[in-house]
This record gives sequence, structure tokens and C-alpha cells, in this order.
Amino acid sequence: MVNYARIADTGKPRVVIIGGGFAGIELAKSLRDADVQVILIDKQNYHTFQPLLYQVATAGVEADSIIHPFRKIFGKQNNFYFRLAEVQFIDTEKQVVETSIGLIRYDYVVMATGATSNYFGDEQMENNAIALKSIDDALTLRNTILHNFEKSLLTDEDEQMNSLMDYVIVGGGPTGVEVAGALSELRKHVLPKDYKELNFKEMDIHLVQSGPQLLKGMSDEASRKAQEYLESFGVKLWLNRRVKSYDGYTVTLDSGETLITRTLIWAAGVSGAPVNGIRKESMLRGNRLQVNVHNRVLGYDNIFAIGDIAAMVTDEYPHGHPMLAQPAMQQGRLLGKNLVNMLSGKPLKAFNYSDKGAMATVGRNHAVADLKMFNKEIKTQGFFAWVIWMFIHLISVIGFRNRLVVMVNWLWSYFTYDTGNRLIVGFTQKNVPVEETMTHKTLI
Amino acid sequence: MVNYARIADTGKPRVVIIGGGFAGIELAKSLRDADVQVILIDKQNYHTFQPLLYQVATAGVEADSIIHPFRKIFGKQNNFYFRLAEVQFIDTEKQVVETSIGLIRYDYVVMATGATSNYFGDEQMENNAIALKSIDDALTLRNTILHNFEKSLLTDEDEQMNSLMDYVIVGGGPTGVEVAGALSELRKHVLPKDYKELNFKEMDIHLVQSGPQLLKGMSDEASRKAQEYLESFGVKLWLNRRVKSYDGYTVTLDSGETLITRTLIWAAGVSGAPVNGIRKESMLRGNRLQVNVHNRVLGYDNIFAIGDIAAMVTDEYPHGHPMLAQPAMQQGRLLGKNLVNMLSGKPLKAFNYSDKGAMATVGRNHAVADLKMFNKEIKTQGFFAWVIWMFIHLISVIGFRNRLVVMVNWLWSYFTYDTGNRLIVGFTQKNVPVEETMTHKTLI
Repeated sequence: MVNYARIADTGKPRVVIIGGGFAGIELAKSLRDADVQVILIDKQNYHTFQPLLYQVATAGVEADSIIHPFRKIFGKQNNFYFRLAEVQFIDTEKQVVETSIGLIRYDYVVMATGATSNYFGDEQMENNAIALKSIDDALTLRNTILHNFEKSLLTDEDEQMNSLMDYVIVGGGPTGVEVAGALSELRKHVLPKDYKELNFKEMDIHLVQSGPQLLKGMSDEASRKAQEYLESFGVKLWLNRRVKSYDGYTVTLDSGETLITRTLIWAAGVSGAPVNGIRKESMLRGNRLQVNVHNRVLGYDNIFAIGDIAAMVTDEYPHGHPMLAQPAMQQGRLLGKNLVNMLSGKPLKAFNYSDKGAMATVGRNHAVADLKMFNKEIKTQGFFAWVIWMFIHLISVIGFRNRLVVMVNWLWSYFTYDTGNRLIVGFTQKNVPVEETMTHKTLI
Repeated sequence: MVNYARIADTGKPRVVIIGGGFAGIELAKSLRDADVQVILIDKQNYHTFQPLLYQVATAGVEADSIIHPFRKIFGKQNNFYFRLAEVQFIDTEKQVVETSIGLIRYDYVVMATGATSNYFGDEQMENNAIALKSIDDALTLRNTILHNFEKSLLTDEDEQMNSLMDYVIVGGGPTGVEVAGALSELRKHVLPKDYKELNFKEMDIHLVQSGPQLLKGMSDEASRKAQEYLESFGVKLWLNRRVKSYDGYTVTLDSGETLITRTLIWAAGVSGAPVNGIRKESMLRGNRLQVNVHNRVLGYDNIFAIGDIAAMVTDEYPHGHPMLAQPAMQQGRLLGKNLVNMLSGKPLKAFNYSDKGAMATVGRNHAVADLKMFNKEIKTQGFFAWVIWMFIHLISVIGFRNRLVVMVNWLWSYFTYDTGNRLIVGFTQKNVPVEETMTHKTLI
């Protein structure tokens, strides 16, 4: 007997959305009044506001305030059904999604599976590095950082101490820059109060970037200022360097230099997170699915892809749109309208990315922004950019209460130079066990 | 070589406190200006406000807002040292605490290890039940509840459905009453919105209590009203019943009746959590350490016990004081003063419990309180008791920001009939795997 998942058949065309990131939830929302049945499948029961993961990892905001349960977001949308499940395979012949809770039939299926960290085949790196793509990652990093300092109290050997107190961040994009900035703020304002027994001059923060400049894709002004800010905060930049290997203790750069750390944060590369069953010919570089201007996956009639997993190749974007929230949300919104058009036999609208610019925050009062509005390009850095960054991120967090909690956290931190609670809760830390390599000296 | 933990010797008498619950932190605080070195050891890096654990478990408040890191609480206390470690043994001869991070020498050691769930030797119960003593417990329960409803969507067999939707709470003390009340509020106001596909008439909440009345130790009025409130909320009470066994699915009562549930919440009994190395003769019923009026453990000069782990036998309290926050805090505070007196050769003050009464909340606008103030006993139930309960708990949460977040949550819930985020984050659920026993019907 074939086990179908138990979902009522409403008699309406079924749109199955795989993944509830920015693209997936915007699509589900834009189908609010459509005469369809919307089924969202995700392996978590909540949407994650990824741009603030780095603040969870550095104890800036609570995890709960940047995630929001799907059932709450869509509580009033009557054509919406959520299922907590992992997708295993899409049978495009039978039009069925195979999941951990059974088969789910579809009329239209939309891949909104996002991106996953790309370690370029380096398994040792994958095992030893910490990524920053999910709440679990962020809490693992927070626990690891706090455990590191607790462990630093147990040794007085310089190298052991430094392996615990030093951090290496790989990747000079927004995430890498933001983590480096947040760690340097912790070093300056917070950690010395918590760990009076440690000397924070020993804490080094290294940022490794393969190219000659940070924030690739942003303006030269933004890159230059971000570099200036990070250097003034005491972050050690390693430009034009790649990490050759990391065994959980020694980082070897392609230039031959080595760094010692028990905590390497991987913010270097992502690739699409495709689902088994889609034909290989539709897949481009970096595991992204090639779509046409209506986000239809090449070679299929009723399979679509939106957001990071989709590569819409155009003259302006020969490798697809940037893997950011804005294109994902815009594609999700438009696909909703196009599905309605499709069902009523109306012509479809081609996607046209409205680029609103990019920004990154480096620390208190310091951010960089390249904004595009009213057909103008505004480049700004420093306090004003930082205020804009906060405002835009605050209004983008889903849920009024979440917004309130994030705002309270930020205001608190701003005026007290203190951060959120430095808590080690439930999630395991990730690094090489330190106990064996360490000698407890008798200093009693 | 003996591995001593690396803690600077300040040349002052060393007071080692094991456990940072209510008793432990009050003691550490009251030694603020004392000429001693205070070392607090705990296996978590934070203090837990246990009275609100049930709200974390039922998605009422965020976990982060009821816990507070020790390093933050004592950031300004210069004689204070914290160590994240598990205590394995106390060598009372050598005056050394053996821990996971090495040996810690002491001049005075104070057990403030609190209480742990007591399953009275029933291993099957211990494996299958969920307790409510720590943040990990509370998050495990929250995840289990939410998973249960996601799984309920997968079946249409009545018994399977009920095993997932029904809850059995064992123990009619404050925790049992509060959990039963909170679950019935979820059933009435929150879950039907999240799970429109389920019929919440199927959700039963059972509360099993060994004696004839709830809230033993409180006044008859309080017990009677708590029972009346719970019954009006549709909680099924099983008074004068004990649970004989629970295999993760079937609960068998000593009266022969059986209940079906995959989630049994154990709020029935606690016992002291003593440390190895203390002589057995000092231990009373329920694993509590017998102490004199100065909280000195019987048979020792420099070993003390405070809070739940301590049993100070007096005429008024023949089994020791109630295992509550108030006696723990008062004992911690007094012991701090007495240690200072001891060091300066002054006479010690005997402990005299100032009973301020007890209270329990059953739900929105419904609480019961037996207050003792100004030498008067005030018994009140209903809205006024509920307001007092909220006020007292709010001001007792440590940290201004935590208080603010809890208040925002409560106000939000009160006016919207909504709760906090229903999130399944990172912690595993605890119940018997449902997949094997379940048939997915083809209802597509």
C-alpha cells in the first residue's frame, strides 16, 4: 500500500511549496486569495530571519525573537496547510513529493529550499568549521564561544589559551564582516566584564578573504570603509588568502602562514540545496536550478524554483540573481500572481529584479550601505548607514512581538554597552576536545 | 600529579558554593563585602527562575527570559569566582571538591544543590515521563507537545490520535496545577488556531493526585478553589489515585483504571540532590542533609547545606522547611552573615523562617493565595490573587531586561489571547516513536 500523507483534498489545484524561507513564505502569502490549496513543507516549524543569525551567535538577540512559527504567520489564511517533514524525493512522473511523513500529491510544486554552506568537497573543514545558516548553527556557535572562555580559565599555556581565545572567520561577505565586527565588540565591551581573570589582549580575531577586498558586489567605498572600520576595531585581515586546510586546531593558508584556533567560522561559500528527482540537465553551477523568467524550472511544466536555489540567467545576471532576501521575496510574490494567471488562462508576467541595494553593519554606529531608491544610488557609511540598517532589519523581522523584543535588546545594548544573556543552553559546542591536550597547573 | 583547578589563591578564606539556585546566589550575594573568596560551581552557566519553567514548557515566555548568567549577576562582585563544572565528590578529609575541571580546595563548602525529581525507584517511569526541573526539561516538554500535534495530523485512528492529544500530569502541587491550567488555556485559545485540522474536543488533560485535595500545605479554601477552577477549565481530576505504571503509552492507576497518553508530566515528588562524600548518617528521608539552626551539616565543622537539600528539623517543621524559594533564599542570606560572624569570632544567629505564604496560578484571572503579612493571614482567590502572583513573580525574575521581556509576553498574551512563539528548537522531544504504530490512510 502506498502511504499518502493525510491532507484533506479540497478539490482545488494543489501548490506544494518546499521550504519556508523568504521566497517560500512570500509565495504562500501572495496565494492568500487564490482558489488553490497551498501546502508548505519545512523541516522546521518556523521561519528564520537569517540576516540576524550572527546576532544570535554573538548573544546580541534571543533566538526566539528572530524565528516565527509558520502556523502563526498563516493562522488566518484558510487555503494554507503546513506539514513538518523532510523531503526525500520528487517523483515528477507521478507528481508526488516523497517525504518523511508519506507521499504528497501536487499539481504545482515550487522549490524554495534555499542554499546550504559549500565546503567545496573539504570534508575535514565541514566537520570542524561552524557555519551560520540556521538557528542550530547560531546557538552552536554561541555555546562554543562561551565554552571557549570557560575553558581558557583552565590553562596557562600560551598556545592552548590562544587556541581557545582566538577566532578565524573565513569569508569577507556581509556575514563574515558582521561576525568579525560583533566579536570585536564582545571583546571590547562585554567579555572583559564576564571574565575578569582573562587578558583580552590575547584574543585575536582573524578574517580571511580570498579576494583583494571585502563585501564583493558592493561599491568600492563600502568595501574600503568596512575594511577601515574592522581594522580600527583590531580585526586582523588576511586579504588575497584562501584557507587550504583546518584540522580543528591549525588553519593553514594557501600562502603558507598558519593560525591557531579551535573555532573557525565558515562564511565563505554557499550552494543551492536541491531536491532529489529533478533532472541533472536543469542544474547549473553551484547546484542552482535554471529557471525561465517565470521561475519555471527548465524542462518541466509544473515545477518552479524561487530564491537562492533558482538561477534565472539574464544578460544583467549571467549567473542568476544574488542569493539575498530581496530577489527571493520578489520572485515568491510574482510567482504567486503568475500561478493565479496560469489557472485563469491569463498571460504571465516576466520577473524583473528591483535592486534596492545592499548593506552590512560592522559594529556600533558603523555600517556601510549602497542604496538604490527613486532611481538614485546613495552610498553612505557610518552612523547614518547604521541607523538605516537597524531600521530596515527591525521592520523586516516577522511578528510585532519579535520586533519589540529585538528593539528592546538593541536599545539596551546601545545604552549599556552590554549584550543579551550569555547563555549556554542545550546545544552542544563544536570543537576538538580540549581536556586531553591540557595540563592543569597547580596554582592553588 | 594531582590536578588542581586553576583558580587564583587570594589568601582569603575560601567559601565554595555548590549550585547556583535561589539559595546559592543569595549566599554569594550576601558575601559581597565579606573578606573571603567566593567560588560558585554549577553545571550550567546560568541561574534558572524555576517557578516559571511551566510557562516556558507551554510557550508562555521565552526560555532566555527566565535564566540569567552567573557572570552577569556577579559582574561587579570582586571576591566572586565562577566555575562551570560538575561536582563528583567531596573529600572532607583533604577539604577538596573533586570536579570535572580538577580539584578545588575549600575552607568552607556549602551544598546548595537543590532537589531532583524522585521517581521512587520506578525506572520505566523515569525513562518515559517528562519532569519540569530545568530549562532542558521545559524545552523538551514544549517540543514534545508541539510534535504531538504535528503527528496527530498523520492519523485518523481514534486511539492513536488520543495518545498524542491527551496529557497526564502526575502530582497536584503548584507545578501540577499550573501545568494543567496552562495546557487548558492552550487548548481553549491557542492550539485550535494553529491546528484547524484537529478537533480539540479530543484533547483531554488528566491530573492525578494521591491525596484527597490539591495544593497540599495550602489552606482548604485555596485547595477547593484550585479544584473548582481546574474543573471549570475542563481538566479531569483523579483524586486519591496513584500511578502504578507507565510504559510510554498506557498509564495504569492503582485503582485499576487506565489512561492512554504519549506524554506524562511528572510533578509528583522531589528528593534532595546530595553530593558523594558526605557521610550517610547526616542524610534524612528524601536525601536531605540534616543541618542545625546555622545550616551546618550534622557531624561537620565547615560543611553547610542550604535550600531544598537542607533539612533543618524543628518543632514547627519536623521534616525540615518546605522545598520552596523563600526558605532557600532566607537560609542563603543568613548563612552569608553567619560566615562573616564566624570569621570574626562573633556569635551566630539561629535561622527563623519568615513564612510569607504560598500561591499558585491556575490560569488567566484565576489564582489562589495564602499570604502572611503584617502578622495577618490573608486568603484570597481569583483575579486579585492572580494580579499578586504576577507582580511577585515579575519582580523576582533576575535582570531588568528579563523582567521587561516577561512583562511584554504577559501583557501580549492577556490582550490577544495568544501565547509566545510555538517553536520546536533543537531539543529532542521525548516519547515513544509513533511512526511504527501508525498507518497512514489514503485520504488524498
